[in-house]
Amino acid sequence: MALRLSTADTDFERNFEALVNARREADEDISADVTAIIKDVRTNGDQALQHLTQKFDGHDLEFTGWRVSEAECEAALESLDPNLRIALELAALRIRDYHEGQRPDNRDYIDDAGVRIGARWNAVERAGIYIPGGRAAYPSSVLMNAIPAKVAGVDKIIMVTPTPGGEINPLVLAAAQIADVDEIWRIGGAQAIAALAYGTEKISSVDVITGPGNAWVAEAKRQVYGVVGIDMVAGPSEIVVVADNKNDPDWIAADLLSQAEHDPTSQSILFTDDADYADQVSACVDAQLKQLKTEQTATASWANNGAIIVVDRFEKAVSLIDRLAAEHLELAIDDPQALFKRIRHAGSVFLGRHTPEAVGDYVAGPNHVLPTGRRARFSSGLSVTDFMKRTSFLECDEASLSRIGPAAIALAEAEGLPAHAESIKKRLR
Amino acid sequence: MALRLSTADTDFERNFEALVNARREADEDISADVTAIIKDVRTNGDQALQHLTQKFDGHDLEFTGWRVSEAECEAALESLDPNLRIALELAALRIRDYHEGQRPDNRDYIDDAGVRIGARWNAVERAGIYIPGGRAAYPSSVLMNAIPAKVAGVDKIIMVTPTPGGEINPLVLAAAQIADVDEIWRIGGAQAIAALAYGTEKISSVDVITGPGNAWVAEAKRQVYGVVGIDMVAGPSEIVVVADNKNDPDWIAADLLSQAEHDPTSQSILFTDDADYADQVSACVDAQLKQLKTEQTATASWANNGAIIVVDRFEKAVSLIDRLAAEHLELAIDDPQALFKRIRHAGSVFLGRHTPEAVGDYVAGPNHVLPTGRRARFSSGLSVTDFMKRTSFLECDEASLSRIGPAAIALAEAEGLPAHAESIKKRLR
Repeated sequence: MALRLSTADTDFERNFEALVNARREADEDISADVTAIIKDVRTNGDQALQHLTQKFDGHDLEFTGWRVSEAECEAALESLDPNLRIALELAALRIRDYHEGQRPDNRDYIDDAGVRIGARWNAVERAGIYIPGGRAAYPSSVLMNAIPAKVAGVDKIIMVTPTPGGEINPLVLAAAQIADVDEIWRIGGAQAIAALAYGTEKISSVDVITGPGNAWVAEAKRQVYGVVGIDMVAGPSEIVVVADNKNDPDWIAADLLSQAEHDPTSQSILFTDDADYADQVSACVDAQLKQLKTEQTATASWANNGAIIVVDRFEKAVSLIDRLAAEHLELAIDDPQALFKRIRHAGSVFLGRHTPEAVGDYVAGPNHVLPTGRRARFSSGLSVTDFMKRTSFLECDEASLSRIGPAAIALAEAEGLPAHAESIKKRLR
Repeated sequence: MALRLSTADTDFERNFEALVNARREADEDISADVTAIIKDVRTNGDQALQHLTQKFDGHDLEFTGWRVSEAECEAALESLDPNLRIALELAALRIRDYHEGQRPDNRDYIDDAGVRIGARWNAVERAGIYIPGGRAAYPSSVLMNAIPAKVAGVDKIIMVTPTPGGEINPLVLAAAQIADVDEIWRIGGAQAIAALAYGTEKISSVDVITGPGNAWVAEAKRQVYGVVGIDMVAGPSEIVVVADNKNDPDWIAADLLSQAEHDPTSQSILFTDDADYADQVSACVDAQLKQLKTEQTATASWANNGAIIVVDRFEKAVSLIDRLAAEHLELAIDDPQALFKRIRHAGSVFLGRHTPEAVGDYVAGPNHVLPTGRRARFSSGLSVTDFMKRTSFLECDEASLSRIGPAAIALAEAEGLPAHAESIKKRLR
């Protein structure tokens, strides 16, 4: 049974604030363990990787092989169900199209003072992408991480993925083949992040690491941030669905469950303006839960983190929605664009009655790697620019330096930096 | 005496690699101390801030005042030397102009499948900017951090700055007034970062924290990354100057020293294609050092971290320059744009013989907050987008969902996520 709130309740503000602040992330402090693993890999390189893989994934890399060969990927793609292959290729095509439009423009102009000014974008050389193994081995994650890197123009994409017991999901390999991943290593966990950040004898270090992972992977990415770039600090994901009573309650229940089935820590929240409709959706959730193969996970998520919030008017929900700053926001109402205009904080928004969030997870085009845990307040989904960086530039001649130089001299002297001032003064003499 | 290398030396590669990998950052592990300070502020709020400010900055906030009033900022601006005021205002104007051009475009289009797709940018609500106090109290840092936030459309800019002994640099206040900073608090160090990230009774939490600081501030920013956004992990700064013998060696020496005078950990590296010219620059550096008020700092930096590298042709320096991935790169040669085209990794580039790096520190327009310590391989200077975030969106109707939905269903089922598939299937029935 999910939490039920109404803005009409006297204790609404207190309960809603508690919902906003509820920590769904594990509180267990694994930072010291992660630090030790990273140190082990930095010190002992491949030997540490072999040892840690034996320990955590239960296989010997010397026996199973360190890398997955291109032949294995090709074979996985060739033997794929044709229907799935078409689906993966459509997804790849649409993801590529959308991300092509994210490539930033260079700037280069001469300003009023005669200074040539601009900025140029370049891709990083090497990107590392982490793909979870086992239960959460998702081919869609491969596409969503590798394609933006390719579009950016990265030279090499190095994928790491744990293969518990040596097993690897052929769909993941097929997706890697479609996305043109350059190398795949059978390693995972914090040790894989350490190898990508610092390099080992076998694995060359990368410049940027992206991709989802468990708490150990997330903490390792946080710890190597600054040595390499990372996409974001990720936490449990969430959806906020805003729905009026003109929606089939069964559809909305499915949308809530599509988030809940990910993980017991996921969160699904419904805003509606009709208490009876809230009851109908709730009943549909309960009915659908019983049919789901993912019942156990979804039930735990819905019971522990789910919520139904009844508001008198949707306009009043805007500030509440912004406070939740959800990864996914569905607006299943009459004029969704009007409400969307008033929303400031959300990772990705799904508008209208025919845009279930799940379509965005796979084939719509925009990235499904999105800020979670209220981080949409300040961060964005994965983008081509996460695999690029900007170099600004300046070019003065004698005339333009004489126009802006004196002000720089005055400021340098005021800041107590005489060599700064001299480097300009000498040129103006 | 700076390091002297030549690509003709047999041990060049080994020595150059050592130069690239030399750690100039303090190795002292302060992370546990910073963790303790952050915990103190989270637990004890303003009381912790008062206590820590007394301990580290030697003044009692209840006595000196927690905030700097707008009247004080106005007074600082009014009593400023008119020449300096003009310089600050020119700098602000040019920085604003350049950063206006960084505001990203929204996207909104209907694709071939009939899906409306796009992305909208919004500013974060509150930005915190850290401005060091004491010796390195730079008004230019105020402009370079606050103006991009204003251009982004941030609602409130909260500045924190330590005021050792209660003293504050009036230039910093004048710059804050020009840049329209909303609040200024007399706190600094890791405790100020903790207050901005988590909030206290007096200080409301922010969404993004930017600005330079010492090792404690940098570590605190690293630790709160994910709770808030941060600009970057900053280290000691550096310049690489590429100069032929047609440059006045005295100019080039001043450029090298303008970096060296910042801090003993700064690094200045000269590439030249003429060994005699290298000697001339070296002699000029020694001569200028004796005249500098900042002699002690600059001498230490030049002796410990400086380098002169003689190459036979500048084209051969390209890969070496990329390996250094310097914060600042000066190309004082005949056709600097041609060489610049071949460079992939640098924070900011200064082209030609009349573009000393110092002009970019103050008045040119592009941001002077740039990636240091080889991080230009994967990160960029501070930008308007650091104070904004992107929300992607999707809108399907029945027809477009029927076109792309089946592929999403196939992938969701293959990934073992039945509720994902159901949320689409129900709408296609």
